[in-house]
Amino acid sequence: MADSRFFYNSGSITLERIISLTGAELLDKNADKNLKFNDVAPLDKAQPDEISFLDNIKYADSLKYSKAGACFIHQKNIKHAPENMLLLVTEQPYQAYALTAQAFYPTKLPKNLIYNNSSIASSAKIGANCQIDTFAVIGENVEIGENCHIGSGASIADGVIIGNNTRIGANSTISHSIIGNNIIIHRGVHIGQDGFGFALGKGAHIKVPQLGRVIIEDFVEIGSGSCIDRGAGPDTIIGTGSKIDNLVQIGHNVVIGKHSIIVSQVGIAGSSQIGNGVVLAGQVGVAGHLKIGNGAKLAAQSGAMSDVPEGAAYGGSPAIPIKEWHRQTLLKRKESKK
Amino acid sequence: MADSRFFYNSGSITLERIISLTGAELLDKNADKNLKFNDVAPLDKAQPDEISFLDNIKYADSLKYSKAGACFIHQKNIKHAPENMLLLVTEQPYQAYALTAQAFYPTKLPKNLIYNNSSIASSAKIGANCQIDTFAVIGENVEIGENCHIGSGASIADGVIIGNNTRIGANSTISHSIIGNNIIIHRGVHIGQDGFGFALGKGAHIKVPQLGRVIIEDFVEIGSGSCIDRGAGPDTIIGTGSKIDNLVQIGHNVVIGKHSIIVSQVGIAGSSQIGNGVVLAGQVGVAGHLKIGNGAKLAAQSGAMSDVPEGAAYGGSPAIPIKEWHRQTLLKRKESKK
Amino acid sequence: MADSRFFYNSGSITLERIISLTGAELLDKNADKNLKFNDVAPLDKAQPDEISFLDNIKYADSLKYSKAGACFIHQKNIKHAPENMLLLVTEQPYQAYALTAQAFYPTKLPKNLIYNNSSIASSAKIGANCQIDTFAVIGENVEIGENCHIGSGASIADGVIIGNNTRIGANSTISHSIIGNNIIIHRGVHIGQDGFGFALGKGAHIKVPQLGRVIIEDFVEIGSGSCIDRGAGPDTIIGTGSKIDNLVQIGHNVVIGKHSIIVSQVGIAGSSQIGNGVVLAGQVGVAGHLKIGNGAKLAAQSGAMSDVPEGAAYGGSPAIPIKEWHRQTLLKRKESKK
Repeated sequence: MADSRFFYNSGSITLERIISLTGAELLDKNADKNLKFNDVAPLDKAQPDEISFLDNIKYADSLKYSKAGACFIHQKNIKHAPENMLLLVTEQPYQAYALTAQAFYPTKLPKNLIYNNSSIASSAKIGANCQIDTFAVIGENVEIGENCHIGSGASIADGVIIGNNTRIGANSTISHSIIGNNIIIHRGVHIGQDGFGFALGKGAHIKVPQLGRVIIEDFVEIGSGSCIDRGAGPDTIIGTGSKIDNLVQIGHNVVIGKHSIIVSQVGIAGSSQIGNGVVLAGQVGVAGHLKIGNGAKLAAQSGAMSDVPEGAAYGGSPAIPIKEWHRQTLLKRKESKK
Repeated sequence: MADSRFFYNSGSITLERIISLTGAELLDKNADKNLKFNDVAPLDKAQPDEISFLDNIKYADSLKYSKAGACFIHQKNIKHAPENMLLLVTEQPYQAYALTAQAFYPTKLPKNLIYNNSSIASSAKIGANCQIDTFAVIGENVEIGENCHIGSGASIADGVIIGNNTRIGANSTISHSIIGNNIIIHRGVHIGQDGFGFALGKGAHIKVPQLGRVIIEDFVEIGSGSCIDRGAGPDTIIGTGSKIDNLVQIGHNVVIGKHSIIVSQVGIAGSSQIGNGVVLAGQVGVAGHLKIGNGAKLAAQSGAMSDVPEGAAYGGSPAIPIKEWHRQTLLKRKESKK
Repeated sequence: MADSRFFYNSGSITLERIISLTGAELLDKNADKNLKFNDVAPLDKAQPDEISFLDNIKYADSLKYSKAGACFIHQKNIKHAPENMLLLVTEQPYQAYALTAQAFYPTKLPKNLIYNNSSIASSAKIGANCQIDTFAVIGENVEIGENCHIGSGASIADGVIIGNNTRIGANSTISHSIIGNNIIIHRGVHIGQDGFGFALGKGAHIKVPQLGRVIIEDFVEIGSGSCIDRGAGPDTIIGTGSKIDNLVQIGHNVVIGKHSIIVSQVGIAGSSQIGNGVVLAGQVGVAGHLKIGNGAKLAAQSGAMSDVPEGAAYGGSPAIPIKEWHRQTLLKRKESKK
């Protein structure tokens, strides 16, 4: 079980509620739906009162010897399960597991509490049931919705708007931004600062005022240490449900579509447009003014120097279709082994 | 127009003042120099009371259909302009635009205000017209010049010296540093910490005391989340007018010359020397103890493993002359398509 | 000598004490061991009352003309030394220098002082001789050992345990972690936040609760701006004596062994295991679920996409044995020059 110093297990849950939460189908129609489970756990650690999952057939052996009381599993894999395990059949075992884990370990609601030693401008509006932690700073004309949590030492600059159910991590700084609902911004994130805009000269460079904003749509998550510059004139936009990992750089005017995945240490240069459902793996670079089509995938450390078509998988630097990149890799190895 | 929640437009400006600010030449000698403009805007959005610019001939079509009242433009491109547009001819249209935008949206001066809940050591000296924000910490014997702005939660450690007209962003930390005039340090920047200096052993590694400083010269800008380690014995130095983007790593003893451009997520290892007017594009790595000559350019994601001569353009990892790198890229693609 | 604004030289040290600190052998058996030295310095700057070192034979010329009063040197290099210099013979001159520099410039002990305007939960336990700086936040049930220093604006969340003699830098944030003894965490480091765990869907992605912790063993050092995510179920572990540079990303469930070196901007994806004594050079990427064997070395900017065997040196992206990578680099250059 998770360390109780840090995690709060909300108590046992019946099989019936698990089925209702996840939509999984109980293989054994006669099983007692009032049976209670106490936790989630990986296959190799789960006990009879715990629920596990099999997502990757690589772990079939762990399944075979698992003591888990119940297991989310795909139809095609049920033959690998031991006899006494309750099987919860679903197309998406990992998603079912995630929902079940959320039920055992629900996100803490913000306390309805504004700490004395936070600093809140008199013109700021703060909705019901918000928690504003110690040494947080809320500027003039800031508007914060309901059920928000602003971490300690976070700085929300003048005029920023934040929706409902949004969490801003400790020591993050936000300015020039409109932030939506149900968003998680982790700690030490910097959003809304000037983009890197200079009219380059042979000698001194002239700073170009950055007159746009950052728009963050609902259900976005942004990892620790990431930086999102505000637009130069148009806005920088992060679309609904996109998830951004730690230490990612997003330049001015970048537009990211819906439900895209941006892994750690990716850098996206100014004015590039990333489609919906795109995956940029770790340390990918995207040059400026490019279009990465919907559903495209870039392999780790690759560098897009030109547009990537919808649905394409690319790798390498400069990035090329991934099959071609794999072929190059093999050819090079053959050559160098001669 | 820029969102007035975040930006303050200082009001209309006459054609005469714009000419005087930028040195551009009015093509139509008979135009009324008392004509007033209200804002800057890109060609496709500009209205008759707004000023735009054409820098890249790619946008000739936007120019053709633009409603902008006036436009900064290079002599060679005036033939593409529509009839009723006032043309402001200049060698550097983007620079002229930047100066005009600065006039419409001037940088906010610091308020002459030290917030009650900042923490300032009694031995610190703070010049006239400084703004020290909430929860900022100013250490013993710190010296800050005039017209400086220290953001909320920033920490200026004992002994640091800061010149005039310099801005330190919220939640940045600075120690062991001499910071000049007219500098912008964005938020969450960390300057002056120990460099990564260890006498490596087979078992434990021994920490080598880092006895140098960070010297930041005038007109430098440093992006959010960047880290600049102090020198090991000599100093780490960032030269006049150099601009550093977000999430950049600068190791101990690095010396950067004047007016160089260091783009996001670049890493420069210890003791390397970067010349004047160098451009390191996004995610470039420079190994330790190298010299990158004046005016050299490294393409995005390239990695300098040896010196780069003055004026050279390099690409690839390890970095080689960029023409050769492009040839390699083409040859590889030919091979892999066979 | 180091700038006295920032560094405190603790005063002269006798040759005898230096020998005892470092285990070096004095070549001239008749030299006066009561001779006093006042500082350390590089060969080209050292004065007769200062101690230097020769580690790399490249600097033999600097040795030849150096005025240093004494020098740590390897037996094989003593022939390069000038006549009047006292030679301190050792297998590891740089380590001896590091220990001597530490003696001249000892780490400041924390003041036994809890600043008024820090915020400490009533249930937190803080050991003897700790310094808690201004605007630091210590959460409920936190336990901090003796002689610790918590920097200004640092946030130590509920339940975190910290051992003895550990320093946490300004504006760092720590949660869900067990931190050992004699650890240096620099400024703006974020430890213990949720890892990037999502059950990916075609549309919305489902957040997977991250139920593990971060365990940091003794004598670890972690550079500014680095992020270490907590485990998803198992823990994220940083082994004894490992040194992590600035802006490094460590994903959930990563395990790093003992005395490994992780250079700036490295990214290690979730669940990878890094052995003991591993060196990951700058900007290296390690994909998820890999094993990097004990003593392995990855060259700067390389990307491990599969396991790396014990003791191997790898380079390139995808990373391959470094000799092969060098051969590829040479072959490509030959081709492209044809």
